[in-house]
Amino acid sequence: MDNYLTQKRIDFLTEDYCQGFIKYCGLKALRVKKGFFESQVVIEKSHRQQDNFIHAGLIATMADHTAGYSAFTIVPEDYRILTIEFKINFLKPAYGNALKCRSKVINKGKQIIVSESKVYDVRDKSEKLVAKGIVTMMAVHGEKICKE
Amino acid sequence: MDNYLTQKRIDFLTEDYCQGFIKYCGLKALRVKKGFFESQVVIEKSHRQQDNFIHAGLIATMADHTAGYSAFTIVPEDYRILTIEFKINFLKPAYGNALKCRSKVINKGKQIIVSESKVYDVRDKSEKLVAKGIVTMMAVHGEKICKE
Amino acid sequence: MDNYLTQKRIDFLTEDYCQGFIKYCGLKALRVKKGFFESQVVIEKSHRQQDNFIHAGLIATMADHTAGYSAFTIVPEDYRILTIEFKINFLKPAYGNALKCRSKVINKGKQIIVSESKVYDVRDKSEKLVAKGIVTMMAVHGEKICKE
Amino acid sequence: MDNYLTQKRIDFLTEDYCQGFIKYCGLKALRVKKGFFESQVVIEKSHRQQDNFIHAGLIATMADHTAGYSAFTIVPEDYRILTIEFKINFLKPAYGNALKCRSKVINKGKQIIVSESKVYDVRDKSEKLVAKGIVTMMAVHGEKICKE
Repeated sequence: MDNYLTQKRIDFLTEDYCQGFIKYCGLKALRVKKGFFESQVVIEKSHRQQDNFIHAGLIATMADHTAGYSAFTIVPEDYRILTIEFKINFLKPAYGNALKCRSKVINKGKQIIVSESKVYDVRDKSEKLVAKGIVTMMAVHGEKICKE
Repeated sequence: MDNYLTQKRIDFLTEDYCQGFIKYCGLKALRVKKGFFESQVVIEKSHRQQDNFIHAGLIATMADHTAGYSAFTIVPEDYRILTIEFKINFLKPAYGNALKCRSKVINKGKQIIVSESKVYDVRDKSEKLVAKGIVTMMAVHGEKICKE
Repeated sequence: MDNYLTQKRIDFLTEDYCQGFIKYCGLKALRVKKGFFESQVVIEKSHRQQDNFIHAGLIATMADHTAGYSAFTIVPEDYRILTIEFKINFLKPAYGNALKCRSKVINKGKQIIVSESKVYDVRDKSEKLVAKGIVTMMAVHGEKICKE
Repeated sequence: MDNYLTQKRIDFLTEDYCQGFIKYCGLKALRVKKGFFESQVVIEKSHRQQDNFIHAGLIATMADHTAGYSAFTIVPEDYRILTIEFKINFLKPAYGNALKCRSKVINKGKQIIVSESKVYDVRDKSEKLVAKGIVTMMAVHGEKICKE
């Protein structure tokens, strides 16, 4: 049962994923499993940069946020996830019609959770790995979230 | 003359900064000097995340893009800047009315340029350092930019 | 033939791996394949830190150097590898009798090579993943290596 | 009095800095202040790599360990510092007669401390910045240090 997420929790995380800046950027949750989260964004003109490639900032946002939700799948429901830091390598230019991101938890310490995110450029029907991120997060009880 | 940017170049970079995803996110160039770039974004509801803080993805986008333009200030006009990778630490939660980012080039190799970005949360009239990024970039001749 | 390394090249890289600081630290090459390098160090008292764990610096040295040699396996023989930057997450404390590092190339661009290193703590006969690094390198022709 | 370190504490940290792997590598503490730590290593042949430059692993070890002790200067005496992760950019080749590292705390959260390390190559009497690292650490009560 350790690998079990209730359908209610899956539905909650799927919906919770897509708010504020993430909604504004058009990112959507695709698949949720214990320790894993997948998301997608259909690329619009407003996602590109000066040379017409998909902007690194969008890719980084996706890598960070999806990693965050992969961490959400393994903590008690009253915990929140804070990103301490992340690092991302841009491996190839991205210019397709959509991006997919798959994040998985690679380590769970007492408080620190580390996830990896792979971002794929969807070109016609093939997927190309275009970025890889590693995200260090902290699980904090919801009541302890504060402005300092 | 080594530290001189023409007003024409400053105007070009100021305008060029704000396109596509960056325009969509509301980021604007504030100040341009050789090896330095400053930007700002006035925070809207669409920039926040599920706990009402400013989204880490917006902060990272700003750190990356502003670092990129700090690098643009030191290369010949027919060169473009590609981000190889970046790393960003989120030092404090950001919740103010605007963000400012100041990026400066800390090293220029034959091809590799490294810049640092500091992102400040503007609360009333004070500024609080909320994130620090280090960005590794490559200067590439405009004609050599390609999809692989 | 693309995945072929001559025995002569394997022997060269195996020996070349272990010089200077790496020899001083006791690291040794274990296995070499195209795009892959594995190394080992038997832990001595001089590898530990103030709390008796294996020092993060040794782990980082191993992650960097082994990644470098994974990159060496995919470039022409007259090229050298320079580390541009790396990032490493320490996932669990390491305290065993040996460390193993497995590095593989995850992306090869025209000049930039990115490898990942996993460092394992060898405790009796089990291996525990204790650190994960991502290393950004540049392939440079041997004649172009210089002090600036 | 907030910026005050007792001479006893300074002496303790100066001595404590240099143990195990760090002693084996020849690193020594030079200067200790609240939120700041400086170290040095005189370069031997055993610190170099295959192309005769100072090995990146030694530079990274110095950046990590010195950052760790900069964090030690700001926590209660019964706390220990664990490195969660670090990232380091190698800006220029290092080939001089000594290295110096200056680390300073750039953020102190409730548990997470972030320091920056600058490593300088000492050539005759000039110092050249050759690497910059950012180190994320956690302050943990000494009694809570454990193997998992």
